[in-house]
Amino acid sequence: MSNAHWIAADWGTTNLRLWAMRGADVVHHRASGQGMGGLSPAEFAPVLAHETAEWRAGDWAKAPVVACGMVGSRQGWTDAPYATAPTQAGTPLTRVAGENVWIAGGVKQLDPADVMRGEETQIAGLLAARPDFDGVVCLPGTHTKWVRVSAAEICSFQSFMTGEIFALLAEQSILRHTVQATEFDAEAFDGAVQDALAQPHRAFGRLFQLRAGALVGDLTPEVARSTLSGLLIGWELAAAKPYWLGQEVALVGSPALSALYARALVAQGVQVSEADAQAATLAGLHRAWKTIGEMA
Amino acid sequence: MSNAHWIAADWGTTNLRLWAMRGADVVHHRASGQGMGGLSPAEFAPVLAHETAEWRAGDWAKAPVVACGMVGSRQGWTDAPYATAPTQAGTPLTRVAGENVWIAGGVKQLDPADVMRGEETQIAGLLAARPDFDGVVCLPGTHTKWVRVSAAEICSFQSFMTGEIFALLAEQSILRHTVQATEFDAEAFDGAVQDALAQPHRAFGRLFQLRAGALVGDLTPEVARSTLSGLLIGWELAAAKPYWLGQEVALVGSPALSALYARALVAQGVQVSEADAQAATLAGLHRAWKTIGEMA
Repeated sequence: MSNAHWIAADWGTTNLRLWAMRGADVVHHRASGQGMGGLSPAEFAPVLAHETAEWRAGDWAKAPVVACGMVGSRQGWTDAPYATAPTQAGTPLTRVAGENVWIAGGVKQLDPADVMRGEETQIAGLLAARPDFDGVVCLPGTHTKWVRVSAAEICSFQSFMTGEIFALLAEQSILRHTVQATEFDAEAFDGAVQDALAQPHRAFGRLFQLRAGALVGDLTPEVARSTLSGLLIGWELAAAKPYWLGQEVALVGSPALSALYARALVAQGVQVSEADAQAATLAGLHRAWKTIGEMA
Repeated sequence: MSNAHWIAADWGTTNLRLWAMRGADVVHHRASGQGMGGLSPAEFAPVLAHETAEWRAGDWAKAPVVACGMVGSRQGWTDAPYATAPTQAGTPLTRVAGENVWIAGGVKQLDPADVMRGEETQIAGLLAARPDFDGVVCLPGTHTKWVRVSAAEICSFQSFMTGEIFALLAEQSILRHTVQATEFDAEAFDGAVQDALAQPHRAFGRLFQLRAGALVGDLTPEVARSTLSGLLIGWELAAAKPYWLGQEVALVGSPALSALYARALVAQGVQVSEADAQAATLAGLHRAWKTIGEMA
């Protein structure tokens, strides 16, 4: 490619992360809270121009922008259509009309219904590093995804609202009085994962106990928070068992959250590897950027 | 009792309901949004005086007030201590210092840890109408309670966060875009209850599908909302099975919510009766009022 300068954008609901790239190398990085959730369609172009103004004055004057995430949803800048699973992990890019901006399409699944936007790019990034990967990818987050990947394709997947439910319970429910802690209690977490996996139906009844245990017993915030985390992850693992049982699982997420999933899976005898979500996103966007020449 | 005038108060976190009573008869009723959750300790007396001022000008000038609910919690007006289960359903009253106001104590359970405040008064009200009741009481609400009652005692109980989780998911999560509906879809509800009861671990994975089904399929808000309701109630029933299996269940709740629980339980072959929560509260407060003379 004659000009190796481009800009990578991870543009989600609440954040915008930008990298000034030269080929596969990061030269500059910046992040802002200008997520797509707070923007109207007319605001995307000026926000992007403002956030990249410094780079545009230099080598990245005419550089294309390659983006992934909710920016490509119907409520975003331009509707980048879903590919339908099974599909190749590197989904086609959609060009924003009149702009040198390209957005990765998400992936949908019809039955059972499911969608992803952004994770397909992370999986493409994982495959760039491990082209022969054949197994299961778990991407923990607000809506954790479990994805079967084979022959460089996203075969099938399922999303769980674990991260969002944890945040709602810990910050907005009656449990918020009980789980404000920063320390992690490994024993409480491990026990809760084990209990929820063994008897998922009973986990539902243990939630209010986290409040009651603090009121009438000596349950500490650390133990309550780690138990809540363990119950929800254990519950998810019970539901996602067809994905991980007997498989090697590649975790792609923030290091802190991936560590919890790794801990829970390893306790079940599952072999796991961990990849950083941001690095995977960048690798996936790099791979997407290389296709622009083919499409132009 | 020489003076048959008294005032009943159901003083919860978000609402204050008041009745001017003559013996067991309601003469006047009023309700306000002055729940204890928004009041500091010094505000309870003036709020009560203001809300009952009209009645105080007449026959209820010196009448005692008998209250139940979160007003008796540590964050309320006066800490009305918990009785420890197993305990009689009509818990002792605690007098507010310097006031002719009496608050029913809640009930705690040590293992597994649990608490109730207000429901003990509703159960006492149920027992006033059915003194020989021996079985299980289910009180659906924000924190649904399942209670074993025998020989006029609260033997053991368990709380579930079903109502609060439904509200958080329906109003604050990503599902809020998908479940805004007022119509009820009986088939979707029944199917979801059945699925969650049969395979509670899989219900967790169906939550995000309610969003995805609307995005990539033709899932309507009515079906999505009724499914969400059915999944959560089915989940709770799976966890509460030791309470209802082979038992007669007395439902005490709002008519709309009790009807959903009745529907789900009857489908499992459970015999249910339904009592109105407000009537039960009043009957329980009446019973408590009659003990004031004994205590004074």
